[in-house]
Amino acid sequence: MYSNLSLGALGLSADFPTAVELAVKHGFGGLDPDIGHLAAQGDQGAIREAGAAVAERGLRWGVAGLPVDLTAPAAEFTTQISDLPATLDVLTAAGIPSVGTWVRPMHDALTYRRNWVLHVSRLSLVAEVLADAGLRLGLEYVGPKTFWSTERFPFIHSLSEVRELIADTGAANVGVILDSFHWYTAGETATDLVGLRDAEIVSVDINDAPDDRDRDEQLDLDRRLPATTGVIDLAGFMTGLRDAGYTGPVKVEPFLTSLSEQPIDDVLADVSSRLDAAIG
Amino acid sequence: MYSNLSLGALGLSADFPTAVELAVKHGFGGLDPDIGHLAAQGDQGAIREAGAAVAERGLRWGVAGLPVDLTAPAAEFTTQISDLPATLDVLTAAGIPSVGTWVRPMHDALTYRRNWVLHVSRLSLVAEVLADAGLRLGLEYVGPKTFWSTERFPFIHSLSEVRELIADTGAANVGVILDSFHWYTAGETATDLVGLRDAEIVSVDINDAPDDRDRDEQLDLDRRLPATTGVIDLAGFMTGLRDAGYTGPVKVEPFLTSLSEQPIDDVLADVSSRLDAAIG
Amino acid sequence: MYSNLSLGALGLSADFPTAVELAVKHGFGGLDPDIGHLAAQGDQGAIREAGAAVAERGLRWGVAGLPVDLTAPAAEFTTQISDLPATLDVLTAAGIPSVGTWVRPMHDALTYRRNWVLHVSRLSLVAEVLADAGLRLGLEYVGPKTFWSTERFPFIHSLSEVRELIADTGAANVGVILDSFHWYTAGETATDLVGLRDAEIVSVDINDAPDDRDRDEQLDLDRRLPATTGVIDLAGFMTGLRDAGYTGPVKVEPFLTSLSEQPIDDVLADVSSRLDAAIG
Amino acid sequence: MYSNLSLGALGLSADFPTAVELAVKHGFGGLDPDIGHLAAQGDQGAIREAGAAVAERGLRWGVAGLPVDLTAPAAEFTTQISDLPATLDVLTAAGIPSVGTWVRPMHDALTYRRNWVLHVSRLSLVAEVLADAGLRLGLEYVGPKTFWSTERFPFIHSLSEVRELIADTGAANVGVILDSFHWYTAGETATDLVGLRDAEIVSVDINDAPDDRDRDEQLDLDRRLPATTGVIDLAGFMTGLRDAGYTGPVKVEPFLTSLSEQPIDDVLADVSSRLDAAIG
Repeated sequence: MYSNLSLGALGLSADFPTAVELAVKHGFGGLDPDIGHLAAQGDQGAIREAGAAVAERGLRWGVAGLPVDLTAPAAEFTTQISDLPATLDVLTAAGIPSVGTWVRPMHDALTYRRNWVLHVSRLSLVAEVLADAGLRLGLEYVGPKTFWSTERFPFIHSLSEVRELIADTGAANVGVILDSFHWYTAGETATDLVGLRDAEIVSVDINDAPDDRDRDEQLDLDRRLPATTGVIDLAGFMTGLRDAGYTGPVKVEPFLTSLSEQPIDDVLADVSSRLDAAIG
Repeated sequence: MYSNLSLGALGLSADFPTAVELAVKHGFGGLDPDIGHLAAQGDQGAIREAGAAVAERGLRWGVAGLPVDLTAPAAEFTTQISDLPATLDVLTAAGIPSVGTWVRPMHDALTYRRNWVLHVSRLSLVAEVLADAGLRLGLEYVGPKTFWSTERFPFIHSLSEVRELIADTGAANVGVILDSFHWYTAGETATDLVGLRDAEIVSVDINDAPDDRDRDEQLDLDRRLPATTGVIDLAGFMTGLRDAGYTGPVKVEPFLTSLSEQPIDDVLADVSSRLDAAIG
Repeated sequence: MYSNLSLGALGLSADFPTAVELAVKHGFGGLDPDIGHLAAQGDQGAIREAGAAVAERGLRWGVAGLPVDLTAPAAEFTTQISDLPATLDVLTAAGIPSVGTWVRPMHDALTYRRNWVLHVSRLSLVAEVLADAGLRLGLEYVGPKTFWSTERFPFIHSLSEVRELIADTGAANVGVILDSFHWYTAGETATDLVGLRDAEIVSVDINDAPDDRDRDEQLDLDRRLPATTGVIDLAGFMTGLRDAGYTGPVKVEPFLTSLSEQPIDDVLADVSSRLDAAIG
Repeated sequence: MYSNLSLGALGLSADFPTAVELAVKHGFGGLDPDIGHLAAQGDQGAIREAGAAVAERGLRWGVAGLPVDLTAPAAEFTTQISDLPATLDVLTAAGIPSVGTWVRPMHDALTYRRNWVLHVSRLSLVAEVLADAGLRLGLEYVGPKTFWSTERFPFIHSLSEVRELIADTGAANVGVILDSFHWYTAGETATDLVGLRDAEIVSVDINDAPDDRDRDEQLDLDRRLPATTGVIDLAGFMTGLRDAGYTGPVKVEPFLTSLSEQPIDDVLADVSSRLDAAIG
């Protein structure tokens, strides 16, 4: 696995060339793609060169966002899915191997099973379009009870469930996005990671949680940098990834607004060293 | 539909002959069976006579409890299911047409889909054994969020879901036990009852809810007698039953310990008149 | 229900104005739409007028073909589904209320359950797009064993199965296209039609079967005009439709090449009178 | 893997002590248990000794038959499942690790999905009772089209499907019984075995097929000894087992009545050497 710079996940921003310099300077192994920047390069050849330039700096790609809303009304979803191949042309030209999205863990009108059918239906189609382009899709589950319990019908909010969903689509190019914060808030432990294989994991986030509240009181958008409070068993989480032989990107996504008030180099040096310490 | 006296659901108790007298005295249309009392009559003929005696008093039967725990370990479930026919012999001799149980709305280890398979598996078998004896099964869903959100995996806690479960078993002799308290706490309204048919409803409870808390704060074991606080739209609920052409028993189950401290005749007169007012 | 003229299903062809005249002349209650003809009228107003003109002749619409291949590769399906709204604009302007397609009853690579997921996925999306336009979708199952047994994995080939599929999509605007030939070859009888409601039936075909072979030897493309051989229990079939309160179109689709060699007025007079006799 | 003597599968019979001697004499690695013989030993201690005596002869156990009919009416199934623990006591005392049964590949009344629910329901319960006793269950799929196409609704008749069924039960102690004859008649090739793991395979049969008919004309009860006609790709099949790291029993089940007319030692010498040649 390799550390991945995602400025967006840190609440920071920079133009793409600057992001590349920052990633190199602070020793990240990869960085998030900027699809707008890549698309603006012009034709496929220019995009290919831009991707190659990143690789020449020794950087690999993080996961691009899936530009499709899995639960949008049919008319909107249909438009998004028919526009998808054009975006995929950019991604494949740049050498970006995977896209990701998350699963909304509740619904106010659809029962678990109706929502399941919706997700399998939409995912099957998205996965097939991605497979045609040689791309993988990562699905992130969202663990906090303060989130999944807020509407009438809780939905997927655990690793077991997202794996069941992926299995039901029958798609070989769909895997999990694991986040230690969701893993913890879902009530999961190292045991839940046993048996995972690299091929099932598309991307990883590591975060810690505040230590002033119980697990079921944790809030999705209030997290900590990894290995700060020690609430989350980071060592157990990373052992699970290592046992799986995980080879992909690892980033942080702490939703800490204070980071944007600090010197960016201080933040990135800290984040990079925390990622390196975790990856080992 | 007809009012049904369930002393147990009122937190009261009496021997069965006394219960029959109380039901008649207070104008109930039916009463809950007492399987122990019936079984103690001896042979099938004696049980048949005991059942006939109740009918002769103008009383119909409420729903007997299903003596099977749907989520018990296999060894225990297997024993219960193999003991079931003996109990069914008592029920059928006495003319009791249906049994009921409830669905536990969460699980700490089984995901929604694994728990679904467990329930379909167990229910399919129970329903077939009941069908052989000519009996129906009622399934009650449990609505309060303070209950279904207390373990890692919420499960069936709404009318829509319990209907999906029944459909998936494929059993023609399984229906719903509706309780206005669960209907309210599940966030359901009169709209959710549209299209229900009598054949889908096995039994009905009507209760009101305390008016000092929000819907999502309601507690399963803290209810009120129907039409007291007005928190629950009893008129809308009863209209739904009438539109369905419902023909079965209606009882109250308020979990009010104070009832046992009042004169039983006062309690039953009040309950009977509340049921009559609702049934109309 | 009403008799419906489908020249295509008879192996005949005529321009649309001629088809309208033929439908009127021979007393049909409706006719199949000709989407190309309608689209060629120009703008929505012109299409609306063309549709109104048909209605003024006392004719109702049969079912239009769904211009989407449910089992196409994702790229093709995606294109078709994004093109669908334009076609639906034509259909709705002309007042055509429903489209139809059939379910391929076998697959050489997808197991029953994988094929089920594919169909539910595609149908869910198609149904939602159709619902946005106010249209219904009819699904025809195909019954002959000589067809469903020809690849490794038989799929939906009975009324029960197509109803299960529709239920699993959760779509309220999808129903069945019933064909007496498929009903017979699927081994179904009048009993299988009990409980059907008009809302579940989108269109009906009536055909008879050759009397020189057993049911399991019948071939999909070798049928007879209704009430000729008597192999198929047409009376039982029509009773089922009547009991369902069916209100839609009824046509024949005999795959008899000999019809195109006869004077078209003779053919249509015969077909119309056979439909009238069946509808009663 | 090891060669397993199953006299029953050869159409032969002998008392159990004789079977043990024959297995040793002809170099088999294991033999089928004889539950009646074991149960007749008396108490658990005596059964344990009888099992130990077999192990001392250097023999391992084949798979015992599951004494439960998965598709029996509920009353019968309920009796069988409640009687099962007593049989399992015999099996565990004797050290027999697994039982097996087969899946009937069609049904005349239950659709694929209704039959699926029946199988998942029954299997879930059986698997849990077996798991309590520490036993595994093997499920054999049956491949010939001349069998699965004979009723209205074909059911599981391939490796993919039986693996889907096992996954849906969620049971960790259920695996496949593979038979090269079913593998061939199901239209499967070496590719279908890729990815199989030892933990998924409970037992294996190897047989060849007559060379005077096409694959879809093969009959379930008309097979050949392995590596005789060469119709079945035995090498490819065994490579799949080796790649899976398969460690269990391998036997033949040719349904050749001629074997019972030959000297038993000749038959067993031939079978043993064919198994050894295949196992390699």
